[in-house]
Amino acid sequence: MKHFLSLKDCTKSEILEILKYSIEIKHRFLNNERIIPYFKDKVLAMIFEKSSTRTRISFEVGAYQLGGSAIFLSNKEIQLGRGESIQDTARVISSMVDMIMIRTFEHSRIEEFVKFANVPVINGLSNEFHPTQLIADYLTMIENGISEDSNLIAPYSKRESIKKPVVCYIGDGNNMAHSWLMLASKLGFELRIATPKGFEPQKDILDLAFHFSKESGAKIELTNSPKDAISRANVITTDTWISMGQENQKASKLKQFEGFCIDENLMKLGDKEAIFLHCLPAYRGYEVSNEVIEGKQSKVFDEAENRLHAQKGIMAFLGEQNCKK
Amino acid sequence: MKHFLSLKDCTKSEILEILKYSIEIKHRFLNNERIIPYFKDKVLAMIFEKSSTRTRISFEVGAYQLGGSAIFLSNKEIQLGRGESIQDTARVISSMVDMIMIRTFEHSRIEEFVKFANVPVINGLSNEFHPTQLIADYLTMIENGISEDSNLIAPYSKRESIKKPVVCYIGDGNNMAHSWLMLASKLGFELRIATPKGFEPQKDILDLAFHFSKESGAKIELTNSPKDAISRANVITTDTWISMGQENQKASKLKQFEGFCIDENLMKLGDKEAIFLHCLPAYRGYEVSNEVIEGKQSKVFDEAENRLHAQKGIMAFLGEQNCKK
Amino acid sequence: MKHFLSLKDCTKSEILEILKYSIEIKHRFLNNERIIPYFKDKVLAMIFEKSSTRTRISFEVGAYQLGGSAIFLSNKEIQLGRGESIQDTARVISSMVDMIMIRTFEHSRIEEFVKFANVPVINGLSNEFHPTQLIADYLTMIENGISEDSNLIAPYSKRESIKKPVVCYIGDGNNMAHSWLMLASKLGFELRIATPKGFEPQKDILDLAFHFSKESGAKIELTNSPKDAISRANVITTDTWISMGQENQKASKLKQFEGFCIDENLMKLGDKEAIFLHCLPAYRGYEVSNEVIEGKQSKVFDEAENRLHAQKGIMAFLGEQNCKK
Repeated sequence: MKHFLSLKDCTKSEILEILKYSIEIKHRFLNNERIIPYFKDKVLAMIFEKSSTRTRISFEVGAYQLGGSAIFLSNKEIQLGRGESIQDTARVISSMVDMIMIRTFEHSRIEEFVKFANVPVINGLSNEFHPTQLIADYLTMIENGISEDSNLIAPYSKRESIKKPVVCYIGDGNNMAHSWLMLASKLGFELRIATPKGFEPQKDILDLAFHFSKESGAKIELTNSPKDAISRANVITTDTWISMGQENQKASKLKQFEGFCIDENLMKLGDKEAIFLHCLPAYRGYEVSNEVIEGKQSKVFDEAENRLHAQKGIMAFLGEQNCKK
Repeated sequence: MKHFLSLKDCTKSEILEILKYSIEIKHRFLNNERIIPYFKDKVLAMIFEKSSTRTRISFEVGAYQLGGSAIFLSNKEIQLGRGESIQDTARVISSMVDMIMIRTFEHSRIEEFVKFANVPVINGLSNEFHPTQLIADYLTMIENGISEDSNLIAPYSKRESIKKPVVCYIGDGNNMAHSWLMLASKLGFELRIATPKGFEPQKDILDLAFHFSKESGAKIELTNSPKDAISRANVITTDTWISMGQENQKASKLKQFEGFCIDENLMKLGDKEAIFLHCLPAYRGYEVSNEVIEGKQSKVFDEAENRLHAQKGIMAFLGEQNCKK
Repeated sequence: MKHFLSLKDCTKSEILEILKYSIEIKHRFLNNERIIPYFKDKVLAMIFEKSSTRTRISFEVGAYQLGGSAIFLSNKEIQLGRGESIQDTARVISSMVDMIMIRTFEHSRIEEFVKFANVPVINGLSNEFHPTQLIADYLTMIENGISEDSNLIAPYSKRESIKKPVVCYIGDGNNMAHSWLMLASKLGFELRIATPKGFEPQKDILDLAFHFSKESGAKIELTNSPKDAISRANVITTDTWISMGQENQKASKLKQFEGFCIDENLMKLGDKEAIFLHCLPAYRGYEVSNEVIEGKQSKVFDEAENRLHAQKGIMAFLGEQNCKK
C-alpha cells in the first residue's frame, strides 16, 4: 500500500509523477473539463483533528472534481485514540472508504494509523510535515519557470526555466521549514533557511535532509541572517510565527524575530524576478509586510489555488499506484 | 460579477427572473426530474457563522439537485476576519469553488467579502437582510394567486391572481421586516408594517424603501396598530420576537408586544382568503397562536419547502448571469 | 409510510427482505459495481444528536454508493425540540429530503418525529434500540454459516448453515441486548443473555420479546452466569459497559462486572466454531480480552464493514417500500 505521509518517504520520481498528474489535471480543468475521473465513485474520509479551511475545501472540492466524494470528520466526530484505539479506528474506517486524509498533531499518530489502514492515507498536515503544501508550492515554482522540472509543464506552457533555483525560507524552523528541507533534498536544489537562534528546524530532520542531499546534490544552508539567506534567491518564502489571540506572546516574539519580517528592503536582496510564497494565513506586519504580500512578486493566491490541483494530483497518483497492486 | 446580497441591489426584472427560474425548477422537480443541471459539476461553499437548519439543508440539497455539490463550513471551521483577514479568505475560497453562500451577522461583513470574491456570493441571512427567504415567500404568494406576477406560473397553473396584493407584517422591525420593505418597494405592492413603539425598522432602510417606491408605485405604511395593518390584507406574516432560552427577557417582551400575537381574532380582520406566512422557527403563543399556524390559511410549510426551490432559482440565475460575462 | 425504527415494528419477512437487499448490494459492490442506484439522485438527512463515527461514515458512504447523497446535521446545527418543536422540524426537513436518519437519546423522540415526517425515517441508534447494527450482525452470522437463513446468501456462497443457532450476549442489558431480544424473538432463534444482577434488560422489552417468541418459536433465556449462557453458543457477543473518561466509575463497574469479561477461558465453553461479535468501540480488558477480539474467532471488523452494506440494504428496502405506495 502506497501512502503520502511526508516527502521523506517519496522518491524524486514519485514527487515528479505527482506533479505531472497535478499539472495535467489543472490544465484539463482550466479547459472546462470539470470532472476528471481519477477518483470516480470513490469516497475520501477527511479526519481533521485540528481545523484547517484551505486543506478542508481543497480536498473536499478535489475529491468531487475527480468524480468522487468526501466525508468531513471534525474533532467533534472523531478523536484518534480517544474512546477507541487508533488501530481499531483505522481498520473500521478503511473498511468503508477508499482513501483517508488526516490532519493531526504529532506525525507519529498518522504513522500509527497507517500501520492498520488498508487504503491509502494522506497527511493533510502534522506538527512535523506539510507535504501537500509543498506539491502546491513546487507547482507554483514550475508555473513561474523556477524549476529544473519545467519539462513537466512543457505540453501546456512555453516559459523558460531556471536550471538551478535557489529557495530561501525565512522564519520559524517549523513543519514548513521541514517540508522545504525534504523537497529540496529529494529534488536536489539549493535551500537556505534563516531562523532566529533557538528556532532552527529539528535536528533529526536536518540530518535526514543532509543524508538525502548526498544523492540528489541539493545544497542546504542554515543561517541566522535573513539577508545572507535571501541573496539572489529565486523563491522567497516564510510562514507565520505569531498566532492571533496569543497577545501575551507578541512582545517577546516580535523581539525574537526582529529583522525576520520579509519587507520590500529584504526582497530587493533577492533575485529581481523572485517570487514570494506563503502557505497562509499570513499576518501582515509580522512575518511579511503588506506591500510584499500584495506586491507583484507575490504568488500566494496562485499558490493557494494550486492546493486544489496539487491534491487532486496526489489522489490521482495514489489511486493509480494502488490499483497497480 | 453578479451577487445576491439584498433585494435592494436587484432590479424588479432580476427578481422576477429569479422567480421564473424557481417556478420552472420546482415544476420540473415535481415532475420527477430529480436533477436539473443549472449548477452541473460545480461546488457551492456555504459559510455559516451562525447555524441555521433550513438555510443549510435547502442550499445543500439545492446545489445537489442542480447537479452540483455543496461544502458546509461552520463557525468551527471558519470565522471571517479571525485568524485571517476577510479579504484573504474571500480570495482563497473563491479560487477553489464556483459560488459562495454566507450566513453571518453584520451585513457589512458580506459586503467586505464580496469586494474580494471572484465568484457569485449569496447572502444566506444577515442581521439586516434575508433575501432568499423573500423569494420563497413571493413564490408562495404567486402559488396562492396573490401577486401581480401570476403570469410567471401560468405555464404550470391556472389560478387567478389578485392584481394588487396587500401584505401585512406584524411584529419586530427586524431583517424580515427590512426584506419585505425591499421586496414591496421594488415590485410595487402595498406593505403595512405594524410594530410596537421602539421596534420600527431601521431608518436608513425605510428611507431606501420610500425611495424605491417612487419608481415602483409601492405603498408603504408604518403603524403601531396590528388591527389597522391587517385590515383586508391578503398576506399576513410575522417573525419571532422572543428567543428561547432568554427567559429573563420574556416578561418584558410579552408586555412590549402585547396585542401583536397573530391569533384568530386578528386573522378575521384580514381578507377572507388571506394566507399566513412565517419564516420559522415559530414560537406558538408568542408571535402567533397555535390555531393560526396550524389553520387552513397557514402556508408556512409550503413556504419552508419553497426555500429549496427559491434557492435553486437564485443559484440558476447567478450561474446564468455570470456565464454571460 | 414505512420507517425503520426498531425490529419490534418489523415482521420476520421484512427483516429477511432487508437482508436480501444487503447481501445483493454487498456482492454487487465487491464485484466492482461501485454505484448501485437504489437511492439515485436522492438525499438522506442524517440528524446526529450524539456523535457516532461508524454510523456517520456508513450512512454517508452508503447513500453515496446507492447513487444519492447525504447531509450531516450535528447537534451544533440541530437539536430536536430545542428552538423549534419536533413536529415543525420533522415537517420542514421531510419537505426537503427523501429519507431521514436520526441518532438520538430517548427512543420516544424518534417516535414523535415520525408522526410528522412524510419521508421514511431510520433509527441510527437510540437509548433503547440499535436496529441497523443488528442487520449488520445477522448479515455477519449468515456469512459465517450461522443462521437458518443461509438461502439468502446461496446465490453468492455455498457455506452450509447451522439450522438452529444459539446466540449468547454477555454484559450490560442495554440497547444492544434489547436489539438482540427483538431479532431473536422475531426470527425465532435461541438467545441467552447474561448480565450482572441489576443490569438486566428493560422489563417492557423483555415482555415484548416473550410475546413475539410465542409466534416465532424463539427461546429466550436470562441468567446472571456468563458460563451458563455461553455453553455451546454459536455467536458470542457483548457491548461496552465502561466508558472512557469516567474514571471514578471504573472501580465499582469492574466489581459489578467481575467474571463478565469475555476471555479465552470463557470462549472455550462456546461452540468450537463460534464467532465473536462486538459493535465497537471495544475496551480491551474490560468487556473483552485483547486475545479474543484479535483472535481467529473474532469477526468484529467484518461486522463493522457490514454496517455499510446493511444500511444500504435498509435504505434500498425503504425506498422500494415507499415507491410502491
